Amino acid sequence: MGKRNLYLKTIPVEEAQALYQDALKAIAVRRTEKIPVEESLGRMTAKAIYARCCSPLFNAAAMDGIAVIAKETAGATQENPLTLVRGKDYQIVDTGDPVHPPYDAVIMAEDLLEAEEDVVQIMEAASGWQHVRPIGEDIVAGEMLLPGGHKIRPIDIGVLLSGGILEVDVIKRPRVGLIPTGTEIIEPDKEPGEGDIIESNSRMFAAMTINYGGIPHRYAPVEDDYDKIKDAIKKAHEENDIVVVNAGSSAGTEDYTVHILREMGEVLVHGVAIKPGKPVILSIVDGKPVIGLPGYPVSAYIDFENFVRPVMDKMSGERHYAGHTVKAVLSKRLVSSLKHREYVRVKVGKVGDKLIASPLARGAGAAMSLVRADGFCVIDQNSEGVEAGETVEVELYRDIEEIEHTVVSIGSHDLILDFLADLMPLSYPGTFLSSTHVGSMAGLMALKRGETHIAPTHLLDEETGVYNVSYLKKLFPGKCMALIKGVKRIQGIIVQKGNPKGIRGIEDLTRVTYVNRQRGAGTRVLLDYRLKTAGIRPEEIDGYDKEAATHMAVAALVKNGGADAGMGIYSAAHAMDLDFIPVGEEEYDFAIEQESLELEEIKKFLEVLKSSAFAQKAREAGGYDISHAGEVARL
Amino acid sequence: MGKRNLYLKTIPVEEAQALYQDALKAIAVRRTEKIPVEESLGRMTAKAIYARCCSPLFNAAAMDGIAVIAKETAGATQENPLTLVRGKDYQIVDTGDPVHPPYDAVIMAEDLLEAEEDVVQIMEAASGWQHVRPIGEDIVAGEMLLPGGHKIRPIDIGVLLSGGILEVDVIKRPRVGLIPTGTEIIEPDKEPGEGDIIESNSRMFAAMTINYGGIPHRYAPVEDDYDKIKDAIKKAHEENDIVVVNAGSSAGTEDYTVHILREMGEVLVHGVAIKPGKPVILSIVDGKPVIGLPGYPVSAYIDFENFVRPVMDKMSGERHYAGHTVKAVLSKRLVSSLKHREYVRVKVGKVGDKLIASPLARGAGAAMSLVRADGFCVIDQNSEGVEAGETVEVELYRDIEEIEHTVVSIGSHDLILDFLADLMPLSYPGTFLSSTHVGSMAGLMALKRGETHIAPTHLLDEETGVYNVSYLKKLFPGKCMALIKGVKRIQGIIVQKGNPKGIRGIEDLTRVTYVNRQRGAGTRVLLDYRLKTAGIRPEEIDGYDKEAATHMAVAALVKNGGADAGMGIYSAAHAMDLDFIPVGEEEYDFAIEQESLELEEIKKFLEVLKSSAFAQKAREAGGYDISHAGEVARL
Repeated sequence: MGKRNLYLKTIPVEEAQALYQDALKAIAVRRTEKIPVEESLGRMTAKAIYARCCSPLFNAAAMDGIAVIAKETAGATQENPLTLVRGKDYQIVDTGDPVHPPYDAVIMAEDLLEAEEDVVQIMEAASGWQHVRPIGEDIVAGEMLLPGGHKIRPIDIGVLLSGGILEVDVIKRPRVGLIPTGTEIIEPDKEPGEGDIIESNSRMFAAMTINYGGIPHRYAPVEDDYDKIKDAIKKAHEENDIVVVNAGSSAGTEDYTVHILREMGEVLVHGVAIKPGKPVILSIVDGKPVIGLPGYPVSAYIDFENFVRPVMDKMSGERHYAGHTVKAVLSKRLVSSLKHREYVRVKVGKVGDKLIASPLARGAGAAMSLVRADGFCVIDQNSEGVEAGETVEVELYRDIEEIEHTVVSIGSHDLILDFLADLMPLSYPGTFLSSTHVGSMAGLMALKRGETHIAPTHLLDEETGVYNVSYLKKLFPGKCMALIKGVKRIQGIIVQKGNPKGIRGIEDLTRVTYVNRQRGAGTRVLLDYRLKTAGIRPEEIDGYDKEAATHMAVAALVKNGGADAGMGIYSAAHAMDLDFIPVGEEEYDFAIEQESLELEEIKKFLEVLKSSAFAQKAREAGGYDISHAGEVARL
Repeated sequence: MGKRNLYLKTIPVEEAQALYQDALKAIAVRRTEKIPVEESLGRMTAKAIYARCCSPLFNAAAMDGIAVIAKETAGATQENPLTLVRGKDYQIVDTGDPVHPPYDAVIMAEDLLEAEEDVVQIMEAASGWQHVRPIGEDIVAGEMLLPGGHKIRPIDIGVLLSGGILEVDVIKRPRVGLIPTGTEIIEPDKEPGEGDIIESNSRMFAAMTINYGGIPHRYAPVEDDYDKIKDAIKKAHEENDIVVVNAGSSAGTEDYTVHILREMGEVLVHGVAIKPGKPVILSIVDGKPVIGLPGYPVSAYIDFENFVRPVMDKMSGERHYAGHTVKAVLSKRLVSSLKHREYVRVKVGKVGDKLIASPLARGAGAAMSLVRADGFCVIDQNSEGVEAGETVEVELYRDIEEIEHTVVSIGSHDLILDFLADLMPLSYPGTFLSSTHVGSMAGLMALKRGETHIAPTHLLDEETGVYNVSYLKKLFPGKCMALIKGVKRIQGIIVQKGNPKGIRGIEDLTRVTYVNRQRGAGTRVLLDYRLKTAGIRPEEIDGYDKEAATHMAVAALVKNGGADAGMGIYSAAHAMDLDFIPVGEEEYDFAIEQESLELEEIKKFLEVLKSSAFAQKAREAGGYDISHAGEVARL
């Protein structure tokens, strides 16, 4: 075997953070700069700002009308109107005009009787300073406009300028150098070959850096070469306040980062009890923080949040919360190890009054799960897990307002869910569809537990030959249920282009390799039914136990040679340019409680199902009959 | 009188919004553009984005170790280890390396016994595809990565690139033309004279435009001239998607905007039942929205929120909520008129479990109240007001996280509150001090009602000569109270520079004009005590009924000739470069419930009070004795 580092020893997250923050105390300091107020939006004030002048700058009319001398209007009444002459007794003023001595009050235009040109009558005396905005009413010269440590908003820009301030001292944005490393890494604009990994982490880090108030500097990828990586770190170290090296932070044969950082400076931490994200390196090189992060996108993301963001915050004086924390009910049991703190990605939906958190894939490589998730459920290192139904804290990275306007769908998978998720926010900005694919039965169980608004389902009643209805009646006794009609779709066997194995139907599955769907999926129920009809036992099929979670995953496995055949829908075969042997048509509908039909978001969902935009997408995908889409059948 | 428009007729807010949105239906449409993924942070997808390639692109090792052929490892056990030879039976792989046929499984390095160079032993059989990330595990080519109408986040940039996407179709940002008008308006870099108003609204609008996803184009201020304003609107109309004219939207002699817009296009609304912000103009000129907004900063802000933002959202496909809405208990009765929907600025504090909303100044010109406030309490047009203690909805424009880490102070005013508000976030990022100035007594009552953490107070017990203690004992019977010692400060008479009226003490106040503090203010209690001692009746003092709310407001009035004298603290006189006749020293402390001393934020507040940074600021301001600052006296 090649040379490997000692296997990482890990320390708890807080300990690593505290140790590093402590070591950085004297180093990661705030620096300030002076910038024009007009360019200060979102910047943090470095110290209190005091007004240079008053606003208004002078006594000003607060109404359109005339400026008068209050004590000379005494005695005016309805019965005894007082006559005033322009230039002598009054001046015409519009709102905002100065009120000069000897004038000290304003009478509104509506309260005047015009006697003749430049002569008016008033029927009520004016009190001193009425309808006059005194100098400094809004801002007094010398008063504090903003404290230090304040993030400048639009209204702050307004009052700073009104208070005579043109420049402000703000805290400098930390510059973050980002170095991608790895011989297998290629830039995104190159065509990737086998063994290549498209560089994306440094772009993700750059965007995170911007979101956290820093200035990102990305460098070109560096191959796995001790000296080249060292040179790259040197250069980034000169040009930035913080350096992030990604990846090579683990203990493999080609993981040089930790050795280089030990040579260049001091490594304080190598390995943290966090999952995903264990192989993180926290070091200080010549007075600046240099951090090594692992390469898997989810690990990289979580470690940036936990170890780079706090260092940035220390320099920027800002305080970025990991996300708004909410309480949610966990929909599925989560087991975790005492060896680490685990960040489990969860989808969060609001169903009724409850927020529901549904765990997603936990692998460090599953970047899409981070895209699909709404937040993290953090399981403490001293916890072995959380039971379903328990209330957990979720760090949201999606707006709670968005979640509150999201239709939650848990159940069977179909490509039309993507079309609907696409069309919802485009048709009704601010409303969304979020779907989790667990199969028809599991979806209905989630609906029963109140964890979802709708449950897409295609379950065949073998006795009646009718889809879905009998399952709802059996599972929801005494409840007023409904089916939102979705599509009729063609199920069949997905095979490689040109059908090289000559598969003609179910009976041929015994002589090829197969990929199945997970237990409870309607497609699997259909297969089992057809196998039974054909008198074939599951054991006769090579791959019956190999499971994929979606139609697209099945199609992808066939495409890549992982299996010769798999059951699925036509549109998935079509999308992957595969061949398709039809087996039968089925009804894919959305189970729902009748009272949920009153929700605004569900009404919008129905509109989208009935829209011509949806019809067009379904037509393009092929294999769908949408003639009843959006109709509601109350059971 | 000059020519005035008819007085505005107003229509309800929703009606105005609906009418305008309806008229804009075919006009304010979303346009799209293609941009590089790397520059797409925060942009809104125009349509669904599908992956071009799989991730991983190949079957990849998920662990460091060796790639083997699973079925050839069958039979290996602890007792009967199997010997494998490099090149024939296995290949060395690091995490991420491709696993080529015939290899189909990975055994971890930790599970290997090294027999000799290039020969290893295994003690357990490998199952097919173990520790292998199959091609497309994360992303399947052809699968939807993001739906349309999705705001792109850092992680989305990562998966788009990993999925082989380099460019995305996003919705174009609306361009917003901003035209300041008014002969009295001057640019901020000019020295203002009497009658001038510093242009700040267009800068505030520009910042709001950026926050709401648009591109602002500011134009130079235009004087009140029909043709010049018309030309400016024409130009801005050509160059932008939305035009905002500010101000001249009312019905005064020089308010040309509505006439110009009637000539150029169609005015749909002039005047909305909203306070502040009534004189708004909603028009359509040649297929584009042109909006006239009033000049008072608070009106301008609220109208931009209510009438410009929705038009921007329509074009951008985004949905900007006015603010996160929270429920809070109102601390003070609010009376409103049935004539309009009113936006009352409120400070929001979290005391115990409750959010408390405290109303601030309601004038349209009080821009500083918008800076000091945390959100709006919106009183419906069909409501006459809200009683104290009722729960109201508040549209927050400050982060709830910030509010939850804010020490709430309600009570007497002193400049040191500014120093502390400045030092809190700078010393402890993410913690804040928010103070409302209502006088000592009103502050103690707020503390009693649980609306504040601390109540700054300086109330003299005339019998004992001791400050504060007796008031707490009397007002909080049976409660465990404490005083956080603040400062000893010098109270006195603030007079104009050089003391032109020759004021030497309280007895001289009878022959000058005076400005008093509001009822319940400690400074007023002190004055009353001194007047009584001197045998002077309040009626003998000209201006006893003229009230100002802070020391700085008193000083400003004296400075500007609004009064000859006013009682206040030395530092206020010093800050305004005025003269000061000392009257006596008093103790300015912070009343608090003992249990609140345990709060993290209060502990930080105490640290700041004891800090050398605070000491230095107090020294510079003058008139303070801080030798006991931060000490806690439990009563």
